[in-house]
Amino acid sequence: MALPHVVIIGGGFGGLYAARALRRARVRITILDRRNHHVFQPLLYQVAMAALSPGDIASPIRWILRRQKNVEVLLAEVRAIDQAGKQLILADGDERLSYDFLIVASGATHAYFGHDEWRATAPGLKTLEDALDIRRRVLLAFEHAERESDLHRRERLLTFVVIGGGPTGVEMAGALAEISRQSLARDFRHIDPSSARIILIEAGPSVLSTFPESLREAARADLTRLGVDVRTGAAVTGVSPGAIAVGSEIIAAETVIWAAGVAASPLGATLGAPLDRAGRVLVEPELTVPGSRTVFVIGDLAARAGADGKPLPGVAQVAIQMGKHAARNVLRAIEQQPYRPFVYRDLGNMATIGRASAVADFGWMRLKGYLGWLAWLFVHILNLIGFRNRLVVMVQWAWSYFSYQRAIRLITGPLPELDGDRRSSAGTS
Amino acid sequence: MALPHVVIIGGGFGGLYAARALRRARVRITILDRRNHHVFQPLLYQVAMAALSPGDIASPIRWILRRQKNVEVLLAEVRAIDQAGKQLILADGDERLSYDFLIVASGATHAYFGHDEWRATAPGLKTLEDALDIRRRVLLAFEHAERESDLHRRERLLTFVVIGGGPTGVEMAGALAEISRQSLARDFRHIDPSSARIILIEAGPSVLSTFPESLREAARADLTRLGVDVRTGAAVTGVSPGAIAVGSEIIAAETVIWAAGVAASPLGATLGAPLDRAGRVLVEPELTVPGSRTVFVIGDLAARAGADGKPLPGVAQVAIQMGKHAARNVLRAIEQQPYRPFVYRDLGNMATIGRASAVADFGWMRLKGYLGWLAWLFVHILNLIGFRNRLVVMVQWAWSYFSYQRAIRLITGPLPELDGDRRSSAGTS
Repeated sequence: MALPHVVIIGGGFGGLYAARALRRARVRITILDRRNHHVFQPLLYQVAMAALSPGDIASPIRWILRRQKNVEVLLAEVRAIDQAGKQLILADGDERLSYDFLIVASGATHAYFGHDEWRATAPGLKTLEDALDIRRRVLLAFEHAERESDLHRRERLLTFVVIGGGPTGVEMAGALAEISRQSLARDFRHIDPSSARIILIEAGPSVLSTFPESLREAARADLTRLGVDVRTGAAVTGVSPGAIAVGSEIIAAETVIWAAGVAASPLGATLGAPLDRAGRVLVEPELTVPGSRTVFVIGDLAARAGADGKPLPGVAQVAIQMGKHAARNVLRAIEQQPYRPFVYRDLGNMATIGRASAVADFGWMRLKGYLGWLAWLFVHILNLIGFRNRLVVMVQWAWSYFSYQRAIRLITGPLPELDGDRRSSAGTS
Repeated sequence: MALPHVVIIGGGFGGLYAARALRRARVRITILDRRNHHVFQPLLYQVAMAALSPGDIASPIRWILRRQKNVEVLLAEVRAIDQAGKQLILADGDERLSYDFLIVASGATHAYFGHDEWRATAPGLKTLEDALDIRRRVLLAFEHAERESDLHRRERLLTFVVIGGGPTGVEMAGALAEISRQSLARDFRHIDPSSARIILIEAGPSVLSTFPESLREAARADLTRLGVDVRTGAAVTGVSPGAIAVGSEIIAAETVIWAAGVAASPLGATLGAPLDRAGRVLVEPELTVPGSRTVFVIGDLAARAGADGKPLPGVAQVAIQMGKHAARNVLRAIEQQPYRPFVYRDLGNMATIGRASAVADFGWMRLKGYLGWLAWLFVHILNLIGFRNRLVVMVQWAWSYFSYQRAIRLITGPLPELDGDRRSSAGTS
């Protein structure tokens, strides 16, 4: 008899931990992703902020799972899900992939609240490519400012706006402050990088709204100390190249980073299940799609409430625990046992503001400042996949800590066109 | 009185060492590059071969020179040189930059011997972007082979051709053999990566033609032992997607890497000086452009013969020594002393074939195998710029040595379009 075929869409935290949880199961697993690598999302902002290389926080999915012989990894994109026929239709070619159980973990992307035209000006941070794009924009702004003689234009080039005061927004604003105040201190001749304005805009009443009040206030104080202009209760009403509107105020800013909204992967909408406002699938307590026994939705694509009735946040821990739980329910189905409902175990919540400054809420213990930062370092190093990545990230962090520098300040990507022929130009790299 | 203004075009080895050699001089220096970073070219193939990250071998030029107060670094591209007016015309905007002395170090790119149409199929290796492109092609070939059921197409996907048997070609062929035989050994389910064919094609009678015969033969033996099919005296007569022609033979190969020819930066041709066949400027013994006292040309863009009458090779040491020499001649001009001719001091020649295998020719001593490899490691670590890069590269190499793995196996870049809308697709990263 053929082994049951479990197909997992997405090699993020949810998909990867689902596959690993099935490592001893008598099943055949196929995990698909349109990228060949898993990204350790909690450190992605450090790639955007020139502190780490993409390779330090990403590993090939097939390398991670190389020893798990019941898994096959496929670099492929899913066009549609045929639930009636229990098949996936792949994007390239006419290939179809049959499944017995399907775990959809295709994640989320940025949401611009109906203003998709803001995307080009205010990029968000979800992929390595996004991170390199943001790195390029930030570093180019300083380069262009160095060559700019007009004071208004120079000021605009040295104004950085981060929209959204969640962990990612706070981490990026803090990092931008450190880059301008510390890392670039000696490097320019015409501008003073430390005169750069870093503005963090949050529509709600405080940054890090999911943290207890004492930590929210510690974070705000640390950001302010670093020189970040924190504006809460401020709604962005317009984004255009070179300027954003906050209420009735116009802020001239060349570089705008979006850390505000999340929209679920469009694949969720093809499942015929009820969705929440962000497009997430309102899954059953067992993490199945309503009406199905074979299709599970997990991670950022799934909408579930926690014990407090509030929706579970789109963080790694939720995806990891859901991935393991969906895998266990698959095993229960094979063993003809009833499914169990998912219960989220909150292991805590962390955000780093900068050098020796972070907040960590473990429920039974709250840490801030240096202790919070040590906890943050420890947890992140520990959770990185692969010994080499852990070692290299530790070396990079140690070097940054003692030197106040950012090592990966590379502006890469295509050169601007020069008279339609970029090869007829000077300067080596 | 204003200080003399020395302008250096290009932040490669030549330009950088010219700037450093002027660190105590009473001059004003501007160094321009169209990239913000210096690349340690001798290790660029390791980025292409997934062993190192771009950030490990590249550093921002302004960071390298941050403590040298008489230097200004400009991210800019030169459109033309106005020698009569002693000005550079920059590519963006109408800016002009006046100079008293000009050092042109804009390097070289690949040459396809009149077959520019081969470029798209057979990329060369000069920039970080080139390296990431080659990495992407190599890794994608294995991914596509894993999904390919047609045996002929699979074989084509698993055939890798490197054209050119100089150090870069030898290093890439050796690395491709190690990737397929060692690093990927456990990762695939449908293909056997070690069945990949690696073919190194050299038109001349042997690989590494600038090395003594004993080392050439050691290199060839090591390549063969690794499983590389070394073909010397074989001229490539055609390159098209999926196939190359070598004489009358057609080899079906998805991935072709060009390591054969070099063409000087087009800026050389705008100097009105005599050029050699590769477009390099035939400079005077003092490294000046014929007829000029103020314009120097160095590095890959300069054509000079060594003591043996043969043209100096396009290697880092030639560029470094020329850069220092041009800088010293500028100082002599300021002190109203006569220029001195450039004499190249050959410090040796090295190429690595793979793990624990390299050849090194120091003139007074020749090393191969493990000893050659240790010498190669030592020299390259020592010459990397920046303590952090040295440390991280050592960590990466130590890890690769003990694990037989390649850490940076990331396929990055834009996703293929899916029905014109890449966002309506599945799979997280």
